Amino acid sequence: MNLDIEKLVNEIVDDVLKQSVVICSFAQGGECGDCMYCVTLHPQAVRNIVTVGAVRIGAAPGIGAVGESMNRFIDHTLLKPEATPQEVIKLCEEAKNYAFAAVCVNSCYIELAARHLQGSGVEICSVVGFPLGSCTSKTKAFETREAIDDGATEIDMVINVGQLKAQAYDYVEWDIRRVVETAGSQVPVKVIIEACLLTDEEKIKACLLAKNAGAAFVKTSTGFSKSGATTGDVALMRKVVGSEMGVKAAGGIRDFESASKMVTAGASRIGASASVKIVS
Amino acid sequence: MNLDIEKLVNEIVDDVLKQSVVICSFAQGGECGDCMYCVTLHPQAVRNIVTVGAVRIGAAPGIGAVGESMNRFIDHTLLKPEATPQEVIKLCEEAKNYAFAAVCVNSCYIELAARHLQGSGVEICSVVGFPLGSCTSKTKAFETREAIDDGATEIDMVINVGQLKAQAYDYVEWDIRRVVETAGSQVPVKVIIEACLLTDEEKIKACLLAKNAGAAFVKTSTGFSKSGATTGDVALMRKVVGSEMGVKAAGGIRDFESASKMVTAGASRIGASASVKIVS
Repeated sequence: MNLDIEKLVNEIVDDVLKQSVVICSFAQGGECGDCMYCVTLHPQAVRNIVTVGAVRIGAAPGIGAVGESMNRFIDHTLLKPEATPQEVIKLCEEAKNYAFAAVCVNSCYIELAARHLQGSGVEICSVVGFPLGSCTSKTKAFETREAIDDGATEIDMVINVGQLKAQAYDYVEWDIRRVVETAGSQVPVKVIIEACLLTDEEKIKACLLAKNAGAAFVKTSTGFSKSGATTGDVALMRKVVGSEMGVKAAGGIRDFESASKMVTAGASRIGASASVKIVS
Repeated sequence: MNLDIEKLVNEIVDDVLKQSVVICSFAQGGECGDCMYCVTLHPQAVRNIVTVGAVRIGAAPGIGAVGESMNRFIDHTLLKPEATPQEVIKLCEEAKNYAFAAVCVNSCYIELAARHLQGSGVEICSVVGFPLGSCTSKTKAFETREAIDDGATEIDMVINVGQLKAQAYDYVEWDIRRVVETAGSQVPVKVIIEACLLTDEEKIKACLLAKNAGAAFVKTSTGFSKSGATTGDVALMRKVVGSEMGVKAAGGIRDFESASKMVTAGASRIGASASVKIVS
């Protein structure tokens, strides 16, 4: 890990920890509890934000785009191990009908999904090293290559959480970089940090490593661990990666209200199984 | 899938469903509730078996070997994604001290474990396609090759559950066979069927496919799905694979009593994280 990242991390940690009283736009030195900065520390305050109008936190990307176009934010997702080819075909049909951004499936189903989505404009997203992120880096790269050969146009990979916790940042960045380089410039890589297992400092580190490795997105969760996306994590991740990268919120997003909150907090993509319900 | 397996499946399904009243050794046409056959349908009856003496079900492999030698049944396991290298080293030290059969870790840690266990007699087991089993077959084979190159001496792979549910038996068998052939004759492969997601008929099919593909063991569970090993599943799996294959019970086995029950029901290997507690 180079020194620039160390410096950046320290600055952002300080910033995040202090900003609710230093930067808060509304309370002039105190905590208003409902601006984007306070939300970073107080996820529950997002409800207030939605109430008072998302325009107040216009700094968060995605604002104004939600509503009838919610479908374009959604990766329509089916990752449970017992999913059958028939269910994957149904997923693809729904994705076409509702013009979702992508379908997201396990790599064994990419070829099938690609066949059914040919020419539809729906992206085909494969998870890689999913959901533990604990296979070797070479295996992640191999699975990425396989998925792209089979028709994947996006890759959602999981970081090596244990190595992050052990502060083996070179390992974690290299693990991401191998996937990004294998994917090439035409296939965006989303990096799943599994936020529910991380401290805030580890979340920040993970986002910076993903950014440094050339990933296109950071993503909150696999949906297979202790909990899914929170608006607090989304806001934090958005703050760390800035506006050049995407932020995907996934895990436990089951209705329009939750999805909207995620977009309000800074998400530019939503991973969901209940996508049809969300947009209906 | 060839016709012999179809025939075998039908025979065994009939057998399992009827045997508690037909075959029961003790109740002469009724149900005693505590023989191996009744246990298949009534897991709770295992407690009775243990009480009346395991010798009564001498048909179940492993009987007589439990007790002070329980350590030789145990794969000392650490698979959570946040496991650090330091925790893997501790796992290896414990495995050496207690002479466990193996350590079982994710493939990113095989090289580390192999270094720490050199010459110890403890086997080094890598999970593959874990825990969903939903990556491509080629990726499972690649991860197997990688793990063996890194020092793995055993492989625990997960079947493709969705394809099993879709009755794509050729796919499921070929998926296993690729891993078995990659592992070669020196590296036993344990096939995780994730029993909690399967019907009894699917469990039987999965065991027969694993046997047909040349696997060394069938294994109940990943420990990452809805539930772990049950004595009923172990007894059923043992009955299906016979005495030539191993049966590994894993998931939720946290004390000596539970481990003993699994061995009594037919398990020849136990996967556990609480291994030290089990043998202490």
